[in-house]
Amino acid sequence: MNAPLKNDRYLRALAKQPVDRTPIWMMRQAGRYLPEYRELRKQAGDFMSLCKNAELACEVTLQPLRRFPLDAAILFSDILTIPDAMGLGLYFETGEGPRFERPVRDFQDVVALGIPDPEDDLGYVMNAVRTIRRELNGEVPLIGFSGSPWTLATYMVEGGSTKNFAEVKKMAFEAPEIMHLLLDKLAKSVTSYLNAQIANGAQSVMIFDTWGGVLSPRDYREFSLHYMKQIVDGLTREADERKVPVTLFTKNGGQWLEAMAATGCDALGVDWTTDLGDARKRVGEQVALQGNMDPSMLYASPERIRQEVQLILDSYGSGTGHVFNLGHGIHPTVKPEHAEAFIHAVQEFSPAYHR
Amino acid sequence: MNAPLKNDRYLRALAKQPVDRTPIWMMRQAGRYLPEYRELRKQAGDFMSLCKNAELACEVTLQPLRRFPLDAAILFSDILTIPDAMGLGLYFETGEGPRFERPVRDFQDVVALGIPDPEDDLGYVMNAVRTIRRELNGEVPLIGFSGSPWTLATYMVEGGSTKNFAEVKKMAFEAPEIMHLLLDKLAKSVTSYLNAQIANGAQSVMIFDTWGGVLSPRDYREFSLHYMKQIVDGLTREADERKVPVTLFTKNGGQWLEAMAATGCDALGVDWTTDLGDARKRVGEQVALQGNMDPSMLYASPERIRQEVQLILDSYGSGTGHVFNLGHGIHPTVKPEHAEAFIHAVQEFSPAYHR
Repeated sequence: MNAPLKNDRYLRALAKQPVDRTPIWMMRQAGRYLPEYRELRKQAGDFMSLCKNAELACEVTLQPLRRFPLDAAILFSDILTIPDAMGLGLYFETGEGPRFERPVRDFQDVVALGIPDPEDDLGYVMNAVRTIRRELNGEVPLIGFSGSPWTLATYMVEGGSTKNFAEVKKMAFEAPEIMHLLLDKLAKSVTSYLNAQIANGAQSVMIFDTWGGVLSPRDYREFSLHYMKQIVDGLTREADERKVPVTLFTKNGGQWLEAMAATGCDALGVDWTTDLGDARKRVGEQVALQGNMDPSMLYASPERIRQEVQLILDSYGSGTGHVFNLGHGIHPTVKPEHAEAFIHAVQEFSPAYHR
Repeated sequence: MNAPLKNDRYLRALAKQPVDRTPIWMMRQAGRYLPEYRELRKQAGDFMSLCKNAELACEVTLQPLRRFPLDAAILFSDILTIPDAMGLGLYFETGEGPRFERPVRDFQDVVALGIPDPEDDLGYVMNAVRTIRRELNGEVPLIGFSGSPWTLATYMVEGGSTKNFAEVKKMAFEAPEIMHLLLDKLAKSVTSYLNAQIANGAQSVMIFDTWGGVLSPRDYREFSLHYMKQIVDGLTREADERKVPVTLFTKNGGQWLEAMAATGCDALGVDWTTDLGDARKRVGEQVALQGNMDPSMLYASPERIRQEVQLILDSYGSGTGHVFNLGHGIHPTVKPEHAEAFIHAVQEFSPAYHR
């Protein structure tokens, strides 16, 4: 039995219920910009060892919460755990980002993929979720997450990071039936993976569609959004007698917010290339919004950061339905003091928008 | 005295005059995907030697026109010629892209920058423009170009390519007065540079704003669009008793087409993340549109490429005002036969939209 939730601002804002101030968390809030993270990472060795050890993953998840008054914790994990569990052999090359030993290139490769069982094949993630939820002790809600099917497919087909998306787009354009088979398997895998995270204690989930924005509008609907909707439709939407809100975030997806909101999700992540007030006018009746300060703003002075927070609060305007965040993950070279100034500014200025 | 223009489809479409078929050219049509380019490049040594030799630059410009029935030629040059002429020391590191020996980091650096005289400091470009125009012999119009002030500033402040735009954004956010001084100098430099290209024979010009799309809407207007408008206002708009159309292209700028069209330019480049039919509805009364096939579509089969061309022609619909292009530069690893299939498909299918 987990402790009752003390700070539910994040869940209330996503449900568009009144809050005393705008809740805030940061994408990649547990990460390399924190010296205590770098220290632990050095001890653990590589990145995946950190993810696969429940105690260490829990410790890393909690680090930013000890420093800053954040309104949510997010599971420390990688977006590529599912393809790793499918047997593709995830590894990290220094300075190169994630790589797969066995990329997926043809029909046979896709047919051979199984749908991972979250408890058996991704037990280390579930273990981390349970540990974090217990250690959070009801302070703030825990966000679970996964990469979107399209985003996972880009890494699986390319075998790693890519600039032109040559291989994955070639498959999508040239052999859409193979791509759809892959995406369908991924959507099923993500659904059961997120449902297992919820069953183990995640109080909200987020789908990161990092690479949906490299597609044309038509291709986005066909290869990315369709499968995110399939996941939304299959998710457990209530746990502990509370709604489990689901947030979709397509980086560079500002042109498609209406279509994303129509999936039936609870909230959209918005990056900084869209004005938050415009986004609210377009979809704010249907969904809550998370965002959207440019993460590079954290390179500016605390005074300038405070000014930007006010502009974004003004842009969204009064009332609930806004979770403050960066428009993308915090950069590893940002000073923690600047993140602190950001978080404090949201706390200081946002109550005026909730009277 | 240059030869009269034989194929003016490109200029007519940009002026929204009737055409028999949709004109086509490709961004980076003179480049690495062509074996004859790679051969010449090997002989010339480095990239800038190719740009600085008028005969070689002319030869490279004409190479794609000998292979394909394109409706425009584009000056072979680099977007970073202006900062190079300002004395920043442009060089290319293998696999690293462009670099500057002396990046611009503070007020003194910006104050020290002079505005290059196009004939004296960039005479090699003007020489190339004259040579190409003469050798084109009126076959198709010649497009001149420059990088946008913001895009030039990103390379000048970062000292090369960048992922997070940390330095240039820090300057913009933290010391906007220094950034504006830099951008104003760049806008003046680009204006006189493009006017000199026009005086020397360019029949149309294009401003490439490769990095405007990494800004928030507010920052885009302040740091990128404002200076593109300043350039549009200062350009020679007629030569040889013909209009010299100016095209603005902000990569990932699909959300801001209305604001771009309001600058008074003649056309907008549109990348593939925006539906061309939607773009036409939004701004097609004011400006012509260039675009917008995903360059990665050229990795697919000729049959699939032909299908995509039809979808894009359908999306734009009947009538003039469309110049077919890719949504970004052609990738170096594309097969020339696929580019050919693309160009032929536009020629074959587009007349039906101009009856």
